[in-house]
Amino acid sequence: MTTVALDGRGADRGAEVIVAGARAAAADGIAVRVFGDPAELRELEGVDGVEVIEAPGFISNEEEPVAAVRGKEDASIVMAAHDVAEGRSDALASAGPTGATMTAALFAMRRSQGVRRPALALQLLVPGRKGPPSLLLDVGANAEVRPGDLVQFAYLGSAFSAAVLGVERPRVALLSVGEEDKKGTQDVIEAHAALREAEGIHFIGNVEGRDLLGNAADVIVTDGFTGNVALKTMEGTARAVADAVGRAARSNPIAAAGGLLLRPALGGLRREMDPDTTGGAILLGLRGVAVVGHGSSGEAGIANAIRLAARSVEQRAVERTAELLAQHGATRSGLRLRSEQ
Amino acid sequence: MTTVALDGRGADRGAEVIVAGARAAAADGIAVRVFGDPAELRELEGVDGVEVIEAPGFISNEEEPVAAVRGKEDASIVMAAHDVAEGRSDALASAGPTGATMTAALFAMRRSQGVRRPALALQLLVPGRKGPPSLLLDVGANAEVRPGDLVQFAYLGSAFSAAVLGVERPRVALLSVGEEDKKGTQDVIEAHAALREAEGIHFIGNVEGRDLLGNAADVIVTDGFTGNVALKTMEGTARAVADAVGRAARSNPIAAAGGLLLRPALGGLRREMDPDTTGGAILLGLRGVAVVGHGSSGEAGIANAIRLAARSVEQRAVERTAELLAQHGATRSGLRLRSEQ
Repeated sequence: MTTVALDGRGADRGAEVIVAGARAAAADGIAVRVFGDPAELRELEGVDGVEVIEAPGFISNEEEPVAAVRGKEDASIVMAAHDVAEGRSDALASAGPTGATMTAALFAMRRSQGVRRPALALQLLVPGRKGPPSLLLDVGANAEVRPGDLVQFAYLGSAFSAAVLGVERPRVALLSVGEEDKKGTQDVIEAHAALREAEGIHFIGNVEGRDLLGNAADVIVTDGFTGNVALKTMEGTARAVADAVGRAARSNPIAAAGGLLLRPALGGLRREMDPDTTGGAILLGLRGVAVVGHGSSGEAGIANAIRLAARSVEQRAVERTAELLAQHGATRSGLRLRSEQ
Repeated sequence: MTTVALDGRGADRGAEVIVAGARAAAADGIAVRVFGDPAELRELEGVDGVEVIEAPGFISNEEEPVAAVRGKEDASIVMAAHDVAEGRSDALASAGPTGATMTAALFAMRRSQGVRRPALALQLLVPGRKGPPSLLLDVGANAEVRPGDLVQFAYLGSAFSAAVLGVERPRVALLSVGEEDKKGTQDVIEAHAALREAEGIHFIGNVEGRDLLGNAADVIVTDGFTGNVALKTMEGTARAVADAVGRAARSNPIAAAGGLLLRPALGGLRREMDPDTTGGAILLGLRGVAVVGHGSSGEAGIANAIRLAARSVEQRAVERTAELLAQHGATRSGLRLRSEQ
């Protein structure tokens, strides 16, 4: 049985969604160890497959992650990450602050052999898309990266896409400002050339911002600054358009009637675009599995974060990533590109 | 009377929209000099306020802009840009390839005193927004910029927002991955500090990708790589959501009836989000006005590009930008930041 350590604090919607999500995942046969305030998690007492471990401390979104993780050994996210590092749990899941989750995971689990920079990979929710989601990485672990890091991200993403999302031969693309090889910053142009030569990944060239929600690629690599801007731009735009449609549907009685008739059909779209569907982002490049759930996760989001963590363990995501990197010499020393020497 | 030089070639929808757009702008009292193939533009013969000048050459989207602009003196965009530089027209408008338009404008009109890098500024279409649009710059003129360039962009954008869009005291923001001063790349962090100190602009701090379509700021500055990714991500996301709503409305007869009733109310939204509404992006930092229309512009897009060019001349956008830069020592030499010395 796979065991997942769950941060029992920090979800925007409170302990209620933690309780319900842990219970739902446990019902699927996943063992869940929840770190938090036993009083808040009282309803989990006696639930089959769930264990509550008291974690008195908490790291908020306002704290500087490195200092907070170093200073608070009793914080729920720090205790949960250590639980994985020390082998009592197999994987970590959290819906608490992203920075603290990434830092705690990195400190406790350490990087895989030869990985220079772990990356945060997001599963992109594409309305109407059949089949497994695309992965966009990095969406915020590293504001600045070198071209060689982008090549490593391609291996990290490919391995995860194949192992956990079930994509047979993941198409890898580089995010840039045009499809031509020479478009973009010097770093992007250099990464493009290196990706063309990289063995063991299926590089299909550059994609642009407008392709993120198409079916252009299975893995899209970029630096953490651009990736984070793109991710939040997608969220903001989708919300602005949805709000505008809602306003139109309230603008007059005929439109309102139309909105009522259309609403059931739009429910599917709302589910498709709900971040709860995927369970969250994954921090790739560590010696363990860490799932970074959306802060606003509901019950389904928490349950799916736990399920994604468990599935990653069962599909040997970490081992298969390490194998792919080693097999193609794609570790830190093998990937030092010309500009970095 | 203000005279606008219009590239009569290169619009995706062909000469037909050029003809109709030029005619509509001329009806508003703008003199339009159209450079292109007289046979294609035959319908403009004898139209009041419109003059057709034969330009035998053309630069396509596939050509490398610098080489093409240097090599083709008879290309329509090159002839139109020279028309402005030589004083026969007051401003340039084009719906042809962006790279060729920017290059031709830069070569012919040159940069304003002290401007290191001109920037392409896009008016953001926010559904439901009242009042003037926000400006996002740079959306693609410079893949790489220094922190000092971002500060200059703030002056360029502020001057345009005040002069042409009529915003009294434009709020300027820096695009980053969090609101805190220290979020982002080293360049962004340094630009943030310099913007805090900059006189004559109203800097309100960082905004994130999700704020681009809010009403968070009047001028949002970023490098041309991030800006271009963000712009195309907005376009792609808006289309993906709109397509999904359309699919929902075709999914069953009840939803289809709802879609029909809702459609008139959605028309306003479609107009609000149509790039034709603004007339296009503006290349800021030159000694003349250059409007870069959307390649897919229709008649209204061409007419609005010409109107925007004329309004920029009438509102003395170039002169007011130069005054603002000079007044606050924000020219190239005044803006050399610590890291650039």
